Amino acid sequence: MSMSKGTVGLIGLAVMGENLALNLESKGYKVVVYNRTASRTEAFLKGPASGRDIVGASSLDEMARLLPRPRQIILMVKAGRPVDEVIEQLLPLLEPGDILIDGGNSHFEDTERRTKKVEEAGLLYVGTGISGGEEGALKGPSIMPGGSQRAWCVVGGMLKSIAAKAGKDNDEPCCEWIGPGGAGHYVKMVHNGIEYVVMQAISEAYLLMSSLLSMRAGEIQTVFDNWNKGDLDSYLMEIAASVLKKIDPETGRPLVDVISDRAAHKGTGMWTSQSALELGVPAPSIAESVMARYISSLKAERESAAKTLPGPTPAVYGKDGFDDASKPRIIGAIHDALKGTIICAYAQGFAILAKASETYSWQLNMPSIAALWRGGCIIRAAMLADIMEAFDRQPDLPNLLVSPVFRDALEGVQKGWRAIIALAAQGGVPVPCFASSLSYYDSYRAARLGTNLVQAQRDYFGAHTYERVDREGVFHTDWTSEE
Amino acid sequence: MSMSKGTVGLIGLAVMGENLALNLESKGYKVVVYNRTASRTEAFLKGPASGRDIVGASSLDEMARLLPRPRQIILMVKAGRPVDEVIEQLLPLLEPGDILIDGGNSHFEDTERRTKKVEEAGLLYVGTGISGGEEGALKGPSIMPGGSQRAWCVVGGMLKSIAAKAGKDNDEPCCEWIGPGGAGHYVKMVHNGIEYVVMQAISEAYLLMSSLLSMRAGEIQTVFDNWNKGDLDSYLMEIAASVLKKIDPETGRPLVDVISDRAAHKGTGMWTSQSALELGVPAPSIAESVMARYISSLKAERESAAKTLPGPTPAVYGKDGFDDASKPRIIGAIHDALKGTIICAYAQGFAILAKASETYSWQLNMPSIAALWRGGCIIRAAMLADIMEAFDRQPDLPNLLVSPVFRDALEGVQKGWRAIIALAAQGGVPVPCFASSLSYYDSYRAARLGTNLVQAQRDYFGAHTYERVDREGVFHTDWTSEE
Repeated sequence: MSMSKGTVGLIGLAVMGENLALNLESKGYKVVVYNRTASRTEAFLKGPASGRDIVGASSLDEMARLLPRPRQIILMVKAGRPVDEVIEQLLPLLEPGDILIDGGNSHFEDTERRTKKVEEAGLLYVGTGISGGEEGALKGPSIMPGGSQRAWCVVGGMLKSIAAKAGKDNDEPCCEWIGPGGAGHYVKMVHNGIEYVVMQAISEAYLLMSSLLSMRAGEIQTVFDNWNKGDLDSYLMEIAASVLKKIDPETGRPLVDVISDRAAHKGTGMWTSQSALELGVPAPSIAESVMARYISSLKAERESAAKTLPGPTPAVYGKDGFDDASKPRIIGAIHDALKGTIICAYAQGFAILAKASETYSWQLNMPSIAALWRGGCIIRAAMLADIMEAFDRQPDLPNLLVSPVFRDALEGVQKGWRAIIALAAQGGVPVPCFASSLSYYDSYRAARLGTNLVQAQRDYFGAHTYERVDREGVFHTDWTSEE
Repeated sequence: MSMSKGTVGLIGLAVMGENLALNLESKGYKVVVYNRTASRTEAFLKGPASGRDIVGASSLDEMARLLPRPRQIILMVKAGRPVDEVIEQLLPLLEPGDILIDGGNSHFEDTERRTKKVEEAGLLYVGTGISGGEEGALKGPSIMPGGSQRAWCVVGGMLKSIAAKAGKDNDEPCCEWIGPGGAGHYVKMVHNGIEYVVMQAISEAYLLMSSLLSMRAGEIQTVFDNWNKGDLDSYLMEIAASVLKKIDPETGRPLVDVISDRAAHKGTGMWTSQSALELGVPAPSIAESVMARYISSLKAERESAAKTLPGPTPAVYGKDGFDDASKPRIIGAIHDALKGTIICAYAQGFAILAKASETYSWQLNMPSIAALWRGGCIIRAAMLADIMEAFDRQPDLPNLLVSPVFRDALEGVQKGWRAIIALAAQGGVPVPCFASSLSYYDSYRAARLGTNLVQAQRDYFGAHTYERVDREGVFHTDWTSEE
C-alpha cells in the first residue's frame, strides 16, 4: 500500500467500471470499489480483481471512510437519474475539496447543472467523456474531462496515466483538460456523433460492394483490410474488417450475414444532432446517420414496403452492366466516397464544437481535442494527426474542408465520390450518408445557392424581409401589388 | 351590436393579430383589442379597424370588463416568455370557465404546461396553430386548435367561421379539434417542418434550372406556372412563380436575382427535426432542409470556400453537354425529383404525427389533419386531397409511401428523380433535399440494408448485442477470440 500512487474510489461495477478499476490498479492506484448490488462487488473481487490492490466497500459510508482527503470518487453508473441519486447520497458523506468524477455518457446539460450543485456544496465536480469501449477502459481510453477547473491539478495525473498514448513516440496521453461545466461531456457527445457517421459510411461502402458488385463478406474484408493500411487507417475500419472475417459457428456462414440490419442507438448521436440544430450549425451527415439507424429499425415496415414500392433493378457485377475492368474502378470510387464522407463528418463535428465553445464560453482547444482523439477512442484514425496539424497551423480555421491538406484530399476523391452517388441513385441503393455529405460539400463551396427563392417566399407570405446582394439593409416587398 | 354573434378579446396587434381581428369582425364578431403599446391600438382603430365593430381596451382589466362570460381571449403575442407574462397578468382578472386561446407559434411543450396551469385555475386553454401568413389571417387561415377539450364547443363555431374553406363545394372549414394539451401546436409545428422541405425542394428545382440549364427567372416562372396547373398545384408553387415574375424597380432585373441567398428561420423546422429525433422517427428530408438554411446563412464562408474547394464545371445547356432535345427531358426529370421529394416530406410529417400521437396519447385523426391543410395554410396543395383519401381508406397506413395512390406516383417519378440526383452529383450542384428524400425512399423500400455491419461493430466494441435473421433472441459474440 505504501507503493501506491494514491487511492481512488469507484462506484458502479458494470463492465466499463470494472475495466477502469483494473486499469487504475495497473497504473499503481489503490481502488476502493462499490456497487449497489453487493454480490457484483464480491464477484469482481474474487474474480478479475483477485490478488490486486482493489478493495470493496459495503456502503458509500465505508467508501468515504476508506478514502484519503481530498477524496476522488469516479462514478461509472448509468447516465440520467442514477447519477443524481448517487450524488445525493454521497454529498452528506464528503467534505469540502473532495472530487466527484462522472465517467458515464451524461448529457452535457446535466453535467452543467451537477457541476454547479456540487461546487455550491464546496466540493469539486468533473464530468468526463471516456471513449474506447470495454477494451479501451481496460487498456487505455481517450479521456475528455471538464467541470471544476481546480480539480484538474489533483486528478490530471491519474487520468493521464490510465489514458491511451499517441504521437510519434507513443508517449502523449490521450487526455487533456477540456473546459468548464459540461464541456468534457459535450466533446464526448460530438465524438460519438462523428462515430455515427463513420459507421454508417462504412456500412454504405459494404452495402454497395455486396449489392452492386455481388461481393461476399470475405472479399469485402480484404478491401477493408487494404484501406486500413492506407489513408483510411482507423479503428472502425479495422474492426469492420474483423467483423467480416468472423464465421458463425452455427451456420458456417459469415456471421455478418446472419446479423439483423436493425441497428440500435443509445442517444448520443441524437443529442449531437439536436444540439447542432439548436446552435444553427449544419451537420447533415450526423443527422442523416442517426436517421439511417431509425429507418433500419423499421424492419417489418421495410420488408413489407420492399414488396410494393418500385425501384430499378441495379446492374449487378457478373450479370450485366459491369465488366471485370469496371469492378476495381468502382471499388476505388467507393473508397473515395467513404473518405470524402469521413472528412465531412470531422468537419461538421469540429464546426459544432467551435460554435458550442463560442456559445457556452468554453474556449475549447481544437488541436488538443484532435490530439486526444488520436488514440484510445472509437474514432481514432490516422486522419486525426492531419486534423490536429490543420488546427495547429490555423487556429481560426472556419471549417476543416478548407485546410490545405483536406482541400487536396477532397480534390482527389470528389470524382469517384460523385460517380458513386450517381451509380447508387440509378441503382436504387440507399447511401444517405455519402449523398448528404456530398450535398454538404457542394453547398459549402457554393457562392450562390437557390435559397434566395426561399427567402423571397418567406417575405411573400410572412413579411420576413430579405437582404440584397448589391447593398446593405433589410428589405420587404409587397409581392402582390401590380407594380 | 345586437347583431353580433358574440364578443371576443384579442391581445397583440402585430400584423397577424390585426388581420385576425378584421377577419373575426367580418364574420360578425365584435372584437375588443388590446396592445401593450397603446399607440399601436390607436393606429389600428383609426386605420384598418375604423368604422368596424372593433373597440380598444386601454388595459387588460378593461378588456376583462368589456367581455361577456365565458370570456374568450385570443393571444397573438410573440411565442415564449411574452405568452407566460400575459397569462400571468390575465389570470387574476378572469373567472372560471373563461377561455384563453394562444394563436402564436408556441412550442407544444409550453402549451402542454400552460394548459395544465390554466386548467388548474379553473379556466380553459386552447393552444392553436394558425397557418396562412398575413393574408390567411385576414381572409381565412387553416386553424389547428388543441388544449382543453371542453373549450371546443364554445370556440369551435367562431374558429370555423374565420377559417379557410376547402372541399368540392368550398364549404368545409379548414379547422377541426386536434387533441389535448399541445396537440394543436404540435400539428402546426409539423406543418411547418413539411413547409421547410417543400420550399427547399422548390429552390433546388430553381437552382438546377438556373445553373445547369442557364434558364432565367422568367423562363423558370413559366415552368413553375405550368407545374402549378398540374399535379404540383399548391400555394408554394404558385408564389414561387409569382416571385420569379417580380421585377426589381431599382435595377430592372428580376427581383429574385438581387435577393441574397441567406435564408433565415424562426425555429419551427428545427423543433420538428428535434422532435423527430427524440421520437426515433426518420425525417431526414426535414432535417436536411433546416440544415440547408443553416448552410445558406454561412454566406462569407461559402464565398471564400468557393475560391478554394474544387468541383466539376457543370455541363451547361447551350455550351456543352446538353442539346435542345435534352432540355425538356431534364426539366421533366426535375419535376419528378420535386414531386418525389414533396411526397417524402408529407410521408415523414405524417409519420412524425403518428408516433407523437402514440407517445403523447393524442389520438390524432390523420384524415382530418390532411383535410384542414387543404386550404388556408402555407402547404395547401392538391396533393392533400389524395393524402386525406389515403388515410380515410386505410386508417392504420404505416407510411404514405405505400398507399396505392402515392406508390403509383412514385413509380412514375422515380426514373427522372434518379437521373437528377446523378446529374446534380456529377455537375456539383447541391440538391440536399432531393438526394436525402431519394435515400429515404430507397431505404424504406429496402428489405435489407447494410446496417447489420453497424450493429456488429456496436457489439464488437461495446457489447451492445445484436439480433439474428434466422431466429429470435439477443446475441453477443466475443469478436476477438480466435474461434
